[in-house]
Amino acid sequence: MSATRYTYLGPAGTFTEAALRTLPEAATRELVPSVSVPAALDAVRSGEAAAALVPIENSVEGGVTATLDELAAGTPLMIYREVLLPIAFALLVRPGTALADVKTVSGHPVAQPQVRRWLSANLPEAHWESAASNADAARLVQEGRFDGAFAGEFAASLYGLEPLATDIHDASSATTRFVLVGRPGRTAAPTGADKTSSVFWLADDHPGALLELLQEFAVRGVNLMRIESRPTGEGLGQYCFSVDAEGHITDRRVSEALMGLHRICPKVRFLGSYPRADKVPAEVRPGTSDAEFSSAADWLSRCLDGRGEG
Amino acid sequence: MSATRYTYLGPAGTFTEAALRTLPEAATRELVPSVSVPAALDAVRSGEAAAALVPIENSVEGGVTATLDELAAGTPLMIYREVLLPIAFALLVRPGTALADVKTVSGHPVAQPQVRRWLSANLPEAHWESAASNADAARLVQEGRFDGAFAGEFAASLYGLEPLATDIHDASSATTRFVLVGRPGRTAAPTGADKTSSVFWLADDHPGALLELLQEFAVRGVNLMRIESRPTGEGLGQYCFSVDAEGHITDRRVSEALMGLHRICPKVRFLGSYPRADKVPAEVRPGTSDAEFSSAADWLSRCLDGRGEG
Amino acid sequence: MSATRYTYLGPAGTFTEAALRTLPEAATRELVPSVSVPAALDAVRSGEAAAALVPIENSVEGGVTATLDELAAGTPLMIYREVLLPIAFALLVRPGTALADVKTVSGHPVAQPQVRRWLSANLPEAHWESAASNADAARLVQEGRFDGAFAGEFAASLYGLEPLATDIHDASSATTRFVLVGRPGRTAAPTGADKTSSVFWLADDHPGALLELLQEFAVRGVNLMRIESRPTGEGLGQYCFSVDAEGHITDRRVSEALMGLHRICPKVRFLGSYPRADKVPAEVRPGTSDAEFSSAADWLSRCLDGRGEG
Amino acid sequence: MSATRYTYLGPAGTFTEAALRTLPEAATRELVPSVSVPAALDAVRSGEAAAALVPIENSVEGGVTATLDELAAGTPLMIYREVLLPIAFALLVRPGTALADVKTVSGHPVAQPQVRRWLSANLPEAHWESAASNADAARLVQEGRFDGAFAGEFAASLYGLEPLATDIHDASSATTRFVLVGRPGRTAAPTGADKTSSVFWLADDHPGALLELLQEFAVRGVNLMRIESRPTGEGLGQYCFSVDAEGHITDRRVSEALMGLHRICPKVRFLGSYPRADKVPAEVRPGTSDAEFSSAADWLSRCLDGRGEG
Repeated sequence: MSATRYTYLGPAGTFTEAALRTLPEAATRELVPSVSVPAALDAVRSGEAAAALVPIENSVEGGVTATLDELAAGTPLMIYREVLLPIAFALLVRPGTALADVKTVSGHPVAQPQVRRWLSANLPEAHWESAASNADAARLVQEGRFDGAFAGEFAASLYGLEPLATDIHDASSATTRFVLVGRPGRTAAPTGADKTSSVFWLADDHPGALLELLQEFAVRGVNLMRIESRPTGEGLGQYCFSVDAEGHITDRRVSEALMGLHRICPKVRFLGSYPRADKVPAEVRPGTSDAEFSSAADWLSRCLDGRGEG
Repeated sequence: MSATRYTYLGPAGTFTEAALRTLPEAATRELVPSVSVPAALDAVRSGEAAAALVPIENSVEGGVTATLDELAAGTPLMIYREVLLPIAFALLVRPGTALADVKTVSGHPVAQPQVRRWLSANLPEAHWESAASNADAARLVQEGRFDGAFAGEFAASLYGLEPLATDIHDASSATTRFVLVGRPGRTAAPTGADKTSSVFWLADDHPGALLELLQEFAVRGVNLMRIESRPTGEGLGQYCFSVDAEGHITDRRVSEALMGLHRICPKVRFLGSYPRADKVPAEVRPGTSDAEFSSAADWLSRCLDGRGEG
Repeated sequence: MSATRYTYLGPAGTFTEAALRTLPEAATRELVPSVSVPAALDAVRSGEAAAALVPIENSVEGGVTATLDELAAGTPLMIYREVLLPIAFALLVRPGTALADVKTVSGHPVAQPQVRRWLSANLPEAHWESAASNADAARLVQEGRFDGAFAGEFAASLYGLEPLATDIHDASSATTRFVLVGRPGRTAAPTGADKTSSVFWLADDHPGALLELLQEFAVRGVNLMRIESRPTGEGLGQYCFSVDAEGHITDRRVSEALMGLHRICPKVRFLGSYPRADKVPAEVRPGTSDAEFSSAADWLSRCLDGRGEG
Repeated sequence: MSATRYTYLGPAGTFTEAALRTLPEAATRELVPSVSVPAALDAVRSGEAAAALVPIENSVEGGVTATLDELAAGTPLMIYREVLLPIAFALLVRPGTALADVKTVSGHPVAQPQVRRWLSANLPEAHWESAASNADAARLVQEGRFDGAFAGEFAASLYGLEPLATDIHDASSATTRFVLVGRPGRTAAPTGADKTSSVFWLADDHPGALLELLQEFAVRGVNLMRIESRPTGEGLGQYCFSVDAEGHITDRRVSEALMGLHRICPKVRFLGSYPRADKVPAEVRPGTSDAEFSSAADWLSRCLDGRGEG
């Protein structure tokens, strides 16, 4: 067990590490890369790490299925924080390299469409070859295999490289969302700008039951921010739904919706309530505030006593 | 104040009195007729009577608007019991009268369509004239004004008359539903076959908001047995809805639906939970039993503690 | 058959006659009172009258059940026009009568709450006695039975009376809605501010099916302006619904909703599309205009040909 | 342009090729592998190939995002057929190899969990190393790099190998669904067991609008068989939905739902109606058959002429 060790989807120098370092507590933790999302989360399950930072969603690529599936299955885990990181690349080269010297470039395959525009404007002749990660690309530049690597600017020092150009990205800039995952524990207090993640399995074998699921949220005025279907592994057409809802589990509208889903779904997994990285306060529809829930409960008690007017 | 006096929509000898006498406790109460539904309910409000039996719904005529409006407005009242009475008429005559002697008949206007078929088969030449109530018609027969009155068989002795024919009714027999209304008090315990009455005002000025109201019931699996729109008196297109729902206010699905309506409606009035006269147990949709509500609440508590798997 | 005769709920001098006279074509028609709503509508069915004006809804009393039930059952009829009439009373007296001379007053029972406030301010000592109609009260004043009648100011000349006070009404003034009913025929062209009336029977024996019915309207963005449940006469809990929807049957959103209801309801009766008396144009939600329906149909055709992009 | 050339996600010997060969017309086509899903679909767009078979969904891995995204963006394409292939592996070895000789094995990373159970039972000591595809693994066995490859049995002859064991798969056997994609053209006639694929963009920036989208299907009784959210690339929380619905675009319930979505969504892309591989006939809810749609349209026409009773 290590309460001071945090792991992340490695290797060192990736955007995941950069995202992790934006968290204040990261400064006082030992940060250890894991080779894969399952490895990172298993390290948390086994107690080797207190928490793991893993990507869960990207504005270009969509849901990170390894993360979604790991959170839905196996020993339960909980999300405690989220981090949003705009993905912008630097062209990292060995010290002294000029732009004209760059003949070969590398990076993670996902990086390629993000830097294509910059390449055709600035290095139209350069040859691209993919690497296993942006950090790997940087390492291969360090080793002399390529002339330039597209990676986060923060990776430069790690591999003894220098950024020749920075803030390279596609016109519509990409953002990746990461979550800090730990073993289940007490939910943190609401901040007023929170998000609640959960996974629901449907009773029926077709997504028609999805409408019923969404109505449990809608009737209590709870907005959904993300919904992603994932196969349950039990055959084509068998899905579970990974959902992010606006609000905190201690918000009455959220807890009533979750309980409604618990009643109609064969299986539900609560993945945590945590502060929204964008700090946007929840929009509370009239009739769905905690005060209105309390007032309605008071009224119901009075009704039972014959004093229900109001 | 009189705890032993019950009033009812009079005069004596009406179906309302007959309905009241089907209640066991009626045997030990002083039963006093009132001249109108408002008068009967005001007697309850003022304490002159402990309860009032009034008609609320008829399978042919529909809702009794005087009752619906009196329950929706003014000092709150509560429904404690309901009585269903099939409406069948007897032809009451003075002793010694033979069918051939009956030239003129009377009854409440509502009775006329119910006995029309019998009249054309048995007394095709008889002249009909309406009376203020079936009991009034009987009194007028007693006084010699008419030869026969269509009224409840039970009214015969009251007016010194004899039934010449009984069980007269239209092919599809009519039923009237009566409610026993008292001052608000503790709701009786659920019996498993209960009904909950309430009145809801809509926030918007068009019945589109009605859909939202119905969804509060539907999402919790609560069946509606009766819904009636009534004007609020504040202009055309301004309605409130009088609703009977299956189940008891202490059933979790019912109480959550009522609280949901309290949150979204500008005004709600609880009119009581009481045993169904037909004793049909509530149909409980999967996911809406009290046990499932409790289990969901337990799960939610465990979620907050990080032990939510299940 | 009489194409020039219009009938109305009489007697002469009632608000119904006044409402009928607000229609321009009334000037060129023979206007004949009927003794009841069924009588008025039967006169239309038999061809004795070309049309009948009958009250259908009152902002204080609610739906006029005789009208609703007659339109729902029997030989079909259609609504061609509606008239809204604010109900304000005049105190009609014999010429020469001063306010101080008025000791007894009369009117229809419905008028009483509307004039109560005026009476207590101006004639606190006057004795009220109800009459069968406001026009009857006027006749009884003419005959010297009462000193004053509360009726429409327009009734004065008919009975040789004079208005001693006018515009008498309750704080929240009452409005009655009347409909002009004829034999079924071609629907008039839409005006942009129309209303469509219909009656729907539910497949199930409880009003839960009502939600499904309302969704047929809601999903096409059609607002409901009035919904009224009426017993079908086949036993308690058996209802049909009388509905006024915003828009004209030739509006695509309305016709698609009506066809949807025809598919799911065991019985539907179309009662007509006609201009709104208040001339308020229909609110057309984005995605529900005729242009958008046409554009969607064009797109569908293109899809079938493999040219569906857009 | 080549009307006789079909391409597929290569290399030769993969399950995609096996799936393609299950289509009768494949026998008369030139089958050419493509290096990626985008390459296969671009070959169709450019006319190099008449059609492409690509995987779209796997019961274990979920949606194939490359296929979903390529179908949603760029020059429109259409789905004409689907193929379901149960994924079962054979252990392919060089002729003469005995089980005891197998020390190293290879396969696509996705294959590994599917064969893990078989490996631990039969070759607990064997060392696994991943290859770029199952077919690549077979080639590497041919070249002597590994002793055994997990691939489709059909790949054996292609690489001069022999199956040492067959029908190897996880307890819950995996199925992959492939689609045959071509340039847009006329939709094939309905078979009674069809599926309709489309992509919808939401007007709002949160998935709450999803409920409205699902109701367009639900109110017309159209079942959804698959729904998958995909980022639009315009930022986190911006989704489109890839949907498979039961039925054919020429089924009235399906076409009306599609037109409804065309009206409320800023963008819709029809991806085709095609026979279900499982040949299960569509379940048609009462009130949603073509006959009922036609009957409702006839009724509406009669209503406009004043003959709407029924």
